[in-house]
Amino acid sequence: MKDPYLFQHRNILSIEQLSKSDIFHILDTALSFKEISNRPVKKVPTLKGKTIINFFFEPSTRTRLSFEIAAKRMSADTFNIAASTSSAQKGETLIDTARNLEAMNPDIIIIRHGSSGAPGLLSRHIKAGIINAGDGTHEHPSQALLDMMTVRDHKKEIKGLTVAIIGDIAHSRVAHSNILGFTKMGADVRVAGPATFIPPHVDALGATVCASVKEAVTGADVVMALRIQKERQDDPLIPSLREYAQFYGINKSLLQHAKPDVLIMHPGPINRGVEMNPDVADGERSVILEQVTNGVAVRMALLYLVMGTQGVSS
Amino acid sequence: MKDPYLFQHRNILSIEQLSKSDIFHILDTALSFKEISNRPVKKVPTLKGKTIINFFFEPSTRTRLSFEIAAKRMSADTFNIAASTSSAQKGETLIDTARNLEAMNPDIIIIRHGSSGAPGLLSRHIKAGIINAGDGTHEHPSQALLDMMTVRDHKKEIKGLTVAIIGDIAHSRVAHSNILGFTKMGADVRVAGPATFIPPHVDALGATVCASVKEAVTGADVVMALRIQKERQDDPLIPSLREYAQFYGINKSLLQHAKPDVLIMHPGPINRGVEMNPDVADGERSVILEQVTNGVAVRMALLYLVMGTQGVSS
Amino acid sequence: MKDPYLFQHRNILSIEQLSKSDIFHILDTALSFKEISNRPVKKVPTLKGKTIINFFFEPSTRTRLSFEIAAKRMSADTFNIAASTSSAQKGETLIDTARNLEAMNPDIIIIRHGSSGAPGLLSRHIKAGIINAGDGTHEHPSQALLDMMTVRDHKKEIKGLTVAIIGDIAHSRVAHSNILGFTKMGADVRVAGPATFIPPHVDALGATVCASVKEAVTGADVVMALRIQKERQDDPLIPSLREYAQFYGINKSLLQHAKPDVLIMHPGPINRGVEMNPDVADGERSVILEQVTNGVAVRMALLYLVMGTQGVSS
Repeated sequence: MKDPYLFQHRNILSIEQLSKSDIFHILDTALSFKEISNRPVKKVPTLKGKTIINFFFEPSTRTRLSFEIAAKRMSADTFNIAASTSSAQKGETLIDTARNLEAMNPDIIIIRHGSSGAPGLLSRHIKAGIINAGDGTHEHPSQALLDMMTVRDHKKEIKGLTVAIIGDIAHSRVAHSNILGFTKMGADVRVAGPATFIPPHVDALGATVCASVKEAVTGADVVMALRIQKERQDDPLIPSLREYAQFYGINKSLLQHAKPDVLIMHPGPINRGVEMNPDVADGERSVILEQVTNGVAVRMALLYLVMGTQGVSS
Repeated sequence: MKDPYLFQHRNILSIEQLSKSDIFHILDTALSFKEISNRPVKKVPTLKGKTIINFFFEPSTRTRLSFEIAAKRMSADTFNIAASTSSAQKGETLIDTARNLEAMNPDIIIIRHGSSGAPGLLSRHIKAGIINAGDGTHEHPSQALLDMMTVRDHKKEIKGLTVAIIGDIAHSRVAHSNILGFTKMGADVRVAGPATFIPPHVDALGATVCASVKEAVTGADVVMALRIQKERQDDPLIPSLREYAQFYGINKSLLQHAKPDVLIMHPGPINRGVEMNPDVADGERSVILEQVTNGVAVRMALLYLVMGTQGVSS
Repeated sequence: MKDPYLFQHRNILSIEQLSKSDIFHILDTALSFKEISNRPVKKVPTLKGKTIINFFFEPSTRTRLSFEIAAKRMSADTFNIAASTSSAQKGETLIDTARNLEAMNPDIIIIRHGSSGAPGLLSRHIKAGIINAGDGTHEHPSQALLDMMTVRDHKKEIKGLTVAIIGDIAHSRVAHSNILGFTKMGADVRVAGPATFIPPHVDALGATVCASVKEAVTGADVVMALRIQKERQDDPLIPSLREYAQFYGINKSLLQHAKPDVLIMHPGPINRGVEMNPDVADGERSVILEQVTNGVAVRMALLYLVMGTQGVSS
């Protein structure tokens, strides 16, 4: 007799750590929470008296807000720490800062950090649940989960779909988490972008590298454009934004090669006219704002599930 | 038979949009909420489970705090976004940022923005109620409402009063909203200040331009000094602060020309010794701190009334 | 017949203002609140509907967060104001800013300020309770209280203990408050550090100046290392961090001269390898993280006790 499924992750550090069953369970839980945000009274007592800290070392509006909204809609007490006001300025190590937070008995720490692996490092030193809200070029698991939730809403099943991810694959934690997630769920993932944006190991992750955006998009069920991370590149890896838009931007004529019911996705914020044309971003196939809505539901699910493991050994 | 009055504004963008009945209704509602802030337990469940976002593109202590206190005293969940940490840095358009917020199902977004018309632009793209907390040199409706509430507390009726507004009329959204509000309620509004501070259209708004501060103040029931917006002027429009204080600063000898029961007002923060002398700001005719107290009550009323219209077409 | 003890401080400005009975009462109250932070639901309704403002003119992670956690675990509504976004930028005086806050009916204002005496100044102008969260080089009373609580947890009685405080005594409000507190409770306080760090008046406070760290540590029950305030010194008063570590850093060999059950303390954030070696900071005698945990309990006690005096004349 098979054991019943039990969610056992005290920390959500990556899509890599999650099994297919875990992802199904998270998405199902998120779906059950989604309607809370449409109620006149958008609040359930589930996490009352829990202490949840948003610890952001990089600026963020939507991810920080999405987690904070998710937490407050479940009645948790939330606390925001931004890097610029934190002890990081005073020369304290990340682990010392985390241990100090830990000593105040938080239940969950949500962390965004410029260094890949920072959330994992924390999770090895403290008992509070850690949720990775984006670490360097490594992973952004809640983003991939909300992307999968959005695709599943429209396509019923992720298995068997063709997902094209276009842009800066090499520097994108969103791309990394999505490649891992969609391939794990049985989709065929293709990537395309300027050569300097395609990392050498990407086929080992299960993605197919396409020679052109057109090739990647042809017959695709999902087209996801990545943001040009203008603020993260020290020296420009692309000749110009205009040239990027011309060769890699998603536009209507390009999408004629995709399936008629293709979903258009973008993790935001969009550089309109660069990685995506406005008529595509705002078009009828775009599910970009649904991604944001599902983000709150996915984060409610993560907070709920992580909290449920407290007391369970990771 | 006349229809009963119904407050129908989903958005509070300006005093211009409000009728006399609307203003009476807001002020009456505010008055009924005022005592909540004097209770030992300063909290009512009215807006429990509502999501209210403070979205401030300009620094602000008192206005942001006043809205946040108003919201929390009505049990709403509040969220703060400051421009410096927002996606504005990442090149996203204001409308995209707003649509993203909207996708997280907020009930009300309170916005302060350096550009006149930004709150109105938002209101045309999203369903959440928008409250203008100050936009460029356009309007600051909650400030004018708290000013009118303060005057009404002392004078019973605004109709028939003489209100003198002194200072930088041209660059002041506070002046603009107050001229519209007080004239709408039947007061006689006079303005005075350096010629560079008097906009050409001001008499079209219903205000009388006076040649001197003394002329404006003579016989006035209310004297409101505006703040010199040192941080907003690129090139100085006044020769020096000292000269400004001498010719346009409100002092005791000047006030001998006003009515004996004149009310002294200032939207804050005060540049003491510039637009107003300390003995006037702290004197017995000053109602400056009452303005701040009434600000919380007015904002509670606005949140409550805007929320009541949700589901009603604007 | 002796009057029963009554806590009567509307403001917590300093350790200096507190009697031995006050300190005992605060520490007992804190101990009774400590277990709340270990409950699954870390929340009691004690301060529901109270308005508590964190007003921080200096960057702080742990102190601000500790007060905010303390307040929310008692169900208060909390509000954060940081100096960089406050009206301070707009040239308003501190007293005007405070009066404006006061006009919004807060119950308690927690203030950190770079100028010694700023919280005291506020307390003379406004009715809300003021808690000093660190002012210049003057005092940091909640820190000294949490330090005394931590020592008392381990040693039962503070009276008769020998406490060695090492480092920058002259610029440390933590040192100042701790010297006052521990001597008041009957401990023998010794200080040591570079000559430039020992203020002339320190023996008048009741501390003994030692010629070397070794002398201070010999036979000590408690060794407290202070943080080198790198960010607060304009011109360096010490030749180099390396030399400081060699002569004044706390290391294992030095601690062989202390009592075997010595407690190692640090107010944080630690400059590891400068004022304290990692093997000491993380060693079995270190109670540094217990200090942080007790900080939340002490601040809950302060908020509770200050609130209890409202209506009582200070």
